[in-house]
Amino acid sequence: MSTYIPPLEDMQFVIEQVLDAPASWREQPAFAELDADTAREVLAQAGRFAAEVLAPINGPGDRQGCRWSPQGVKTPDGYPQAWRQFVEGGWPALACDPEVGGQGLPNLLNAALFEMLCAANHGWTMYPGLLHGASEAIQATAVGELRERYLPKVVSGEWLATMNLTEPAAGSDLGLIRSRAEPLEPRADGIIANGDRMAISGHKIFISGGDQDMTDNIVHLVLARLPDAPGGTKGLSLFLVPKFLPDGRRNAVFCDGIEHKMGIHGSATSQMRFERAEGWLLGEPHAGLAAMFLMMNAARLHVAMQGLGHLDAATQKALRYARERVQLRAPRRPADAPAAGGPDLIEWHPAMRRILLSLQAQTEGARVLAYWIGVLLDESHQHPDEARRRRAADLVALLTPVAKAFLTDLGHRGADEALGVFGGYGYVHEYGVEQHVRDSRIAMIYEGTNEIQAIDLVMRKLLDSPRRSDALLAELEAEAAACTAEGLTLEAQALTGQVAALRAALAALQAARAADPEAPLRVADDVLHGLGHTLLAWAWARSSRCAPRHPDPARATRKREVARFGLQWLLPAAQWRWQRVQDWAVLPLPWVRP
Amino acid sequence: MSTYIPPLEDMQFVIEQVLDAPASWREQPAFAELDADTAREVLAQAGRFAAEVLAPINGPGDRQGCRWSPQGVKTPDGYPQAWRQFVEGGWPALACDPEVGGQGLPNLLNAALFEMLCAANHGWTMYPGLLHGASEAIQATAVGELRERYLPKVVSGEWLATMNLTEPAAGSDLGLIRSRAEPLEPRADGIIANGDRMAISGHKIFISGGDQDMTDNIVHLVLARLPDAPGGTKGLSLFLVPKFLPDGRRNAVFCDGIEHKMGIHGSATSQMRFERAEGWLLGEPHAGLAAMFLMMNAARLHVAMQGLGHLDAATQKALRYARERVQLRAPRRPADAPAAGGPDLIEWHPAMRRILLSLQAQTEGARVLAYWIGVLLDESHQHPDEARRRRAADLVALLTPVAKAFLTDLGHRGADEALGVFGGYGYVHEYGVEQHVRDSRIAMIYEGTNEIQAIDLVMRKLLDSPRRSDALLAELEAEAAACTAEGLTLEAQALTGQVAALRAALAALQAARAADPEAPLRVADDVLHGLGHTLLAWAWARSSRCAPRHPDPARATRKREVARFGLQWLLPAAQWRWQRVQDWAVLPLPWVRP
Repeated sequence: MSTYIPPLEDMQFVIEQVLDAPASWREQPAFAELDADTAREVLAQAGRFAAEVLAPINGPGDRQGCRWSPQGVKTPDGYPQAWRQFVEGGWPALACDPEVGGQGLPNLLNAALFEMLCAANHGWTMYPGLLHGASEAIQATAVGELRERYLPKVVSGEWLATMNLTEPAAGSDLGLIRSRAEPLEPRADGIIANGDRMAISGHKIFISGGDQDMTDNIVHLVLARLPDAPGGTKGLSLFLVPKFLPDGRRNAVFCDGIEHKMGIHGSATSQMRFERAEGWLLGEPHAGLAAMFLMMNAARLHVAMQGLGHLDAATQKALRYARERVQLRAPRRPADAPAAGGPDLIEWHPAMRRILLSLQAQTEGARVLAYWIGVLLDESHQHPDEARRRRAADLVALLTPVAKAFLTDLGHRGADEALGVFGGYGYVHEYGVEQHVRDSRIAMIYEGTNEIQAIDLVMRKLLDSPRRSDALLAELEAEAAACTAEGLTLEAQALTGQVAALRAALAALQAARAADPEAPLRVADDVLHGLGHTLLAWAWARSSRCAPRHPDPARATRKREVARFGLQWLLPAAQWRWQRVQDWAVLPLPWVRP
Repeated sequence: MSTYIPPLEDMQFVIEQVLDAPASWREQPAFAELDADTAREVLAQAGRFAAEVLAPINGPGDRQGCRWSPQGVKTPDGYPQAWRQFVEGGWPALACDPEVGGQGLPNLLNAALFEMLCAANHGWTMYPGLLHGASEAIQATAVGELRERYLPKVVSGEWLATMNLTEPAAGSDLGLIRSRAEPLEPRADGIIANGDRMAISGHKIFISGGDQDMTDNIVHLVLARLPDAPGGTKGLSLFLVPKFLPDGRRNAVFCDGIEHKMGIHGSATSQMRFERAEGWLLGEPHAGLAAMFLMMNAARLHVAMQGLGHLDAATQKALRYARERVQLRAPRRPADAPAAGGPDLIEWHPAMRRILLSLQAQTEGARVLAYWIGVLLDESHQHPDEARRRRAADLVALLTPVAKAFLTDLGHRGADEALGVFGGYGYVHEYGVEQHVRDSRIAMIYEGTNEIQAIDLVMRKLLDSPRRSDALLAELEAEAAACTAEGLTLEAQALTGQVAALRAALAALQAARAADPEAPLRVADDVLHGLGHTLLAWAWARSSRCAPRHPDPARATRKREVARFGLQWLLPAAQWRWQRVQDWAVLPLPWVRP
């Protein structure tokens, strides 16, 4: 029932035909030896792991859940074995720097890997979810022996890592963090330096993989305050605190319990207690937030892939069910359908067709958008041309909060719509679709809630400087021109309309902010969803334009049909969002009263 | 954490000031002795039961769930005791006919009762959920000894009843039902009559309360086919099959298992097997569907109340949390707030204000709509004036599918938005809000999926005859005129706009259907949601107009403010829906391909 089929052909179409990532790789020395065939083989192997190892333990892991005792957390049956296979396959190091033991493949392929892992088993995928970001943070900050001891094991996945930010009173507001660190070998001059040994104390909550039985050691990255640190986020430092110390002693890091949650039951969401636990300062004092944000940015694209994974997996399930289940007569049947007899396939009923086509169009558009960010992320780091690096970095900065929030929103709402296709069967565990609804909800919350992403987008990415939105507008206009050149009027007009709407919205936001600083915050959610739709329009237009390059003519026709469905049936939602930005930016918002 | 506060003051405002139900009661002899004070007292007692008895066992019942064994189903701790209290309080018979032992109170009060029961504990409320409909079906069909034996016990709630429709292959399509019945004492002339004793065989699934340990006996109402019955829905007959026969023998009705579901874990969703079980024909042969629809119509309003209950309960929780949790500085603070210090209440942040005000406005509007249907339902049965009965019946027929689908949609999506207010805490069981998300999802599916409701609305309620929509348009125009008369321009204009949009949509639907019979089905979902928004607009306009009648001036101001928020911030969504009806009715919808 919970079969997952890796969408390799769809992925290849996006990577090779729509985005032409191989052309980008050829320009970047780091990926000069990578070609489309190698990338295909990597994804095929990743798909086999997701489908054959992870998918079968997804439903059972949900039902069994993690079990806590004072001795530690036991993950669901099969989780530790799957982890060993993952490490032996070299998957944790896929996109890591070869200098520190990574395979040096593009972030794009890592993103595609995580789409499949999450589609197959979100709970299990929480464990490696932060690993890449953690290795980047350690690589950027750790020095000397500390670096040598921890970096290779985190890169390889021999040890898993965690990210300890949240405290009971400090969620979105990290400035409220109270955990403390004090030097274990204080210097006479009071100076504290990178790598100093520390005693860390405090309580952290919602720590994914805070304890588990999958790796011999766990490397906790912890935000806490040094003595005399300033208040707020400027007083936070980052520390590395292992579960087991180098001499084999158990460190004073305790998992006091795990949360009982709506979903991702296979992930141990831990309550952590640090009781003068031994650790080391990572990077400079009071520079912890910046180091942690190295992880957060990688994590946000990763979370966007979770949204896409759920959307695709739930869509697959709904499509298969609708192709098997018969119920009532449809008002019309496809020309190639067998002669009418009893009840018809539910995929022929208009209400179901609308839902299924919407899910398909959203999945295909979302994949183009997400993979584009992957391509840009690689270019921002590796492209030899500085102007290209800068353009790519601008676009990544602009697109990441949109992808995080909009794709997780699509993933959750899409899974919920897919559930509806099953009728009553959708509500029971057996068919696997309701688990996607439950599991996907968390992605809208963690790594910065979707409301926080919208504020980041509007306040820091759009209003602060026009450079980023100019880069995006140029890309949208270029795609519209390319569509026009190929006679794709529908596509070109849709994009031109979005360019005008986006420009008008940005002008309205600037004007409204001048009159009332609160105005952009009132409509941030609409800006984010409007822009998400604009980006889907770009993705659909580009898919439609590139569809003839698909090696299979029938699939080429279908790709254009689905893309045009998106432009005609789904894009009008953007108009409503953009209108709200115009109208609401000047509409006072009352206070809440009980 | 999972406190539920019965919204008695809000209910009274709707019943007494907005709808002036007491005036309607005075016109109906059946309710001539009922006054507002009595109704208040009934609701206050009902609220105490919901808050003090049901709410405390809601979360624990979700975690414990029902447990199945071949000996039968065990419901969660406290469920049977709560049932006994409910029966002793006379609640099952609240709106039943006094002639058969009921209290004869209006359906309106029964609807309000079930809003509170479901808000407090949806899982438990599944057991009495069908009781009222079952007693109506038995009252309408059963004769003689059968009636005397079963009707009083079902009315009083001493025995619970179930509704056995769905089979593995027959969900939305009841014409595919295969269960069989054959006479145990066949007559020589082959005639089969109401009340005949039968042997019933077949498999039924998704039977709520198919087995339980709350009542000594269970009265199953079962759809099955008599020998030589025609195929499809015209060959279905209704049978009464008790778990225990009058002589005390255990009947051959078996619960083979219960479903493991996304939510309502306290409700035993049973797989039933009838092995030549003894039962009796209820009503005429092959007239089972009509009798069952007596239950279905009552059940659909009941399900709408579940949507409202979840919406209100989740909104309450989010409002309380947002009033206690501090996080980050808000861009602006209320004039009466204490001097700025550390982080601000999250209810002051614009993104949260938008969500919380939307939830409040939707809750208040949805309650006016739902209770209006309650008033109309009573008038359709009891009003002495035939024209009033007929108008009320027309409106009930039109509004019921909208309320079922739109309010359950609002309930589920609203609970999901409320969850977001809690951030990570929303995702854990402890705060109780994620349970509303899980529990509320089923209400969009059962008693006719929301897609089926949309088809019913468009094909049978709107397009078949203009009488029903004319009655609604007249009501909308009357309310707009009343608002204009009181100088409420915003309200009047919003309603006038909706009247025009609804008229245009109906014309577009008629024209599109003439060209393409499939057209109305493509946009049925948008018609339903468009009409749902129109009805909320009516509810907000009326609430705003009636607000000055609120006994508390501060609440009066607030009622108008929330209603106007709905009209200004939420109603624009209707425009988008109505536009889709216009555009999409003429847009061909592709076929689904894998």
